[in-house]
Amino acid sequence: MAIVVRTDLDMSVGKMVAQACHAAVAASEESKRTHTKHWRRWRDTGGRKVALEAESLEELMELARRAEELGIVNVLIEDAGHTEVPPGSVTCLGVGPDQAMRVDMVTGDLPLL
Amino acid sequence: MAIVVRTDLDMSVGKMVAQACHAAVAASEESKRTHTKHWRRWRDTGGRKVALEAESLEELMELARRAEELGIVNVLIEDAGHTEVPPGSVTCLGVGPDQAMRVDMVTGDLPLL
Repeated sequence: MAIVVRTDLDMSVGKMVAQACHAAVAASEESKRTHTKHWRRWRDTGGRKVALEAESLEELMELARRAEELGIVNVLIEDAGHTEVPPGSVTCLGVGPDQAMRVDMVTGDLPLL
Repeated sequence: MAIVVRTDLDMSVGKMVAQACHAAVAASEESKRTHTKHWRRWRDTGGRKVALEAESLEELMELARRAEELGIVNVLIEDAGHTEVPPGSVTCLGVGPDQAMRVDMVTGDLPLL
């Protein structure tokens, strides 16, 4: 699973962590329902997760679009915006779990967070 | 759900995010299995998550012990240590989901991450 966090929103570390956790839980739930076999294998081999960064909303949406085209689970997280960011801000994206090679087709070029 | 991350390990932001995501997914899975009613209510009301900090392994273990005593889901995350921290380092703790008041009895005094 890749968790892609926007770095252009000036979120605190705690905010990024909480938003990323939303993405991870949501992508895991979605994957469990729609890609059960992949999900089980992922869980049973340590549930690998990598945190990556995107620099804009456009970049995040483009990654989600690419994952969607490939049939890979993708979950965009929108923040209620009570604290650090404007209401409705899309803060991060969960991709997968899926085969590492397939997740790499979406997020392979992104820098580590 | 509270995710408590150790700040004494000098982890990068990306490492903290990935470790916290392990805790969130693991606590969610555990809670779904053992506290199904709480878990459903939590999920259906936005799956609230807060990221907090602990300054030592001892503090993290003490929080886990307190949660355990109260019958609140608690999951310690141990890192394989291939990268930034020594193998077997306990990096963070997921607490809950449970009633906010009960989670507060464990983590209410901790600073936001």
